Amino acid sequence: MTAPWVTYRPEIKVLDCTVRDGGLMNDHLFEDGLVKGVYEACVAAGIDYMELGYKNSKKLFAPDKFGAWKHCDEDDIRRIVGDNPTDLKLSAMADAEKSDYREDVLPKEQSVLDVIRVATYIHQIPTAVDMIKDAHDKGYETTANLMAISVVKDRELDEALHVLAETPASTIYLVDSFGSLYSEQIQDLMRRYLAAASKVGKQVGIHAHNNQQLAYANTIDAIIQGANRLDATMLGIGRGAGNCPLELLLGFLRNPKFHIRPVLRCIQEHFEPLRDKITWGYEVPYGITAQLNRHPRAAIQALSGDDRPDYAEFYDQCSADD
Amino acid sequence: MTAPWVTYRPEIKVLDCTVRDGGLMNDHLFEDGLVKGVYEACVAAGIDYMELGYKNSKKLFAPDKFGAWKHCDEDDIRRIVGDNPTDLKLSAMADAEKSDYREDVLPKEQSVLDVIRVATYIHQIPTAVDMIKDAHDKGYETTANLMAISVVKDRELDEALHVLAETPASTIYLVDSFGSLYSEQIQDLMRRYLAAASKVGKQVGIHAHNNQQLAYANTIDAIIQGANRLDATMLGIGRGAGNCPLELLLGFLRNPKFHIRPVLRCIQEHFEPLRDKITWGYEVPYGITAQLNRHPRAAIQALSGDDRPDYAEFYDQCSADD
Repeated sequence: MTAPWVTYRPEIKVLDCTVRDGGLMNDHLFEDGLVKGVYEACVAAGIDYMELGYKNSKKLFAPDKFGAWKHCDEDDIRRIVGDNPTDLKLSAMADAEKSDYREDVLPKEQSVLDVIRVATYIHQIPTAVDMIKDAHDKGYETTANLMAISVVKDRELDEALHVLAETPASTIYLVDSFGSLYSEQIQDLMRRYLAAASKVGKQVGIHAHNNQQLAYANTIDAIIQGANRLDATMLGIGRGAGNCPLELLLGFLRNPKFHIRPVLRCIQEHFEPLRDKITWGYEVPYGITAQLNRHPRAAIQALSGDDRPDYAEFYDQCSADD
Repeated sequence: MTAPWVTYRPEIKVLDCTVRDGGLMNDHLFEDGLVKGVYEACVAAGIDYMELGYKNSKKLFAPDKFGAWKHCDEDDIRRIVGDNPTDLKLSAMADAEKSDYREDVLPKEQSVLDVIRVATYIHQIPTAVDMIKDAHDKGYETTANLMAISVVKDRELDEALHVLAETPASTIYLVDSFGSLYSEQIQDLMRRYLAAASKVGKQVGIHAHNNQQLAYANTIDAIIQGANRLDATMLGIGRGAGNCPLELLLGFLRNPKFHIRPVLRCIQEHFEPLRDKITWGYEVPYGITAQLNRHPRAAIQALSGDDRPDYAEFYDQCSADD
């Protein structure tokens, strides 16, 4: 009998997407102090990557309505990180069909960013492939983040993975957009992702949502299967029910290169106070949409009013919503 | 490739311990309306067992300081359930060394209770064995709930399971008192429990805590391994970080005998309002004590004041607390 969980796997790298995913709750209108706090905490904690926000279109997301982290202009990033003289790699996400990537993603030598992560639904794969190539040719590390896979058929998923495996992306991410996946499904999907990715030398990553209180558990399950790239956020902040909490993930990983105290301090200084202003985390309606394999938007909308929705009625509406 | 998770295992039975475990947060001072609401929801939802509270000592827990559900007097129970003319079985828990069980547990023919669950630490096993025999001889179904096993050595655990397997208990419960266990540990422990229990025709149960946001995930892992007796509570209410949420568990189980709407209505009517009065659920200090494999009492105490404790300092204190 062995107990492999007392040690750690050095290949594992952690990406903090606090500002990027958490920003979906407040139109990315974070104060500089918070973004700098997250940056400094990531550096001190030994986190591998920090995702600052999106490289999304100013035509679709007007700069007077959204915070700087919707666009990640070079000047805004440098206001926080300077020339980033640290080991922390910086990332921005670009959404397929929502990004003017040819213009807005600068050549790498003009940017302090290290990584462009391309988020795509399955019907946008050709666009995503072009985005990955564009960013790769400009000199960035790139990744492919295939969203909403809980409603994608297995044959189409395998085909998509095959196409993404041909791109220069370093990593293909399993993204549980609806927070609907159970451990056995994570295990099955991870096997498919690893089969496609490992033969071309790519890594597989996991981005989990907490709609069913399974974000951390599913991240652990993905690790056990072989995922080496992990997304997490401070105090689990993120859209709706939120993400895998970074403070828990670091404790599980046990890699001595990670330090938890800077994360605890950052949470206490910046994110506990934020709980009074922005709401995130598990609520019953998120569990309902997740278990019915639906996008959480109905739950987010239902919870946006002053009163909670009628739960049984909400369940019936979501069940009939086809 | 099969997908067994689309179906269900008919042997699985669910126990609602909302009033018993949730009552640890308010000295069991629930109003009758709430207890009756939980009872009626359990009946309508097709839940198998409802645990009303403890059969603990009035000498140790004075009736003028604690609510009725610390003692579960027959008159109090019947005020809620009458003669319980339903399929729902009723349970009370008795703690080893905290229960005057010889006097307070009535002969079955005088009680509307069906089950006595005996909670025990490993050093109290001889007392627990006597309690199980006493309740069994009086005519009850009995169970053995071995607590705090994350700090019990494997050899001692196997010995304890061997002793409990010899009792008349119908079920031996894996109880993650500290909420510290990860999926791989649950799997290893479940194999030990099943090895001891199944050869004498007993069932294995799981009672998980949410200190690391893993109560629901660990319950699912235990099910996959073979647990057929599951504890859960409405909205996950319970001591500290709480328990496995019943509303999520029913969705996972998929057994058509269960109905989720009565649970959703009960949560909405009784437990959402309670969140303003009693605090439960994940907080960073619970994650810290769980990951350090400590009882959550330091976290409960640290969170009882007006201000949150200094997290990094709390981490250091817990790390040094040996």
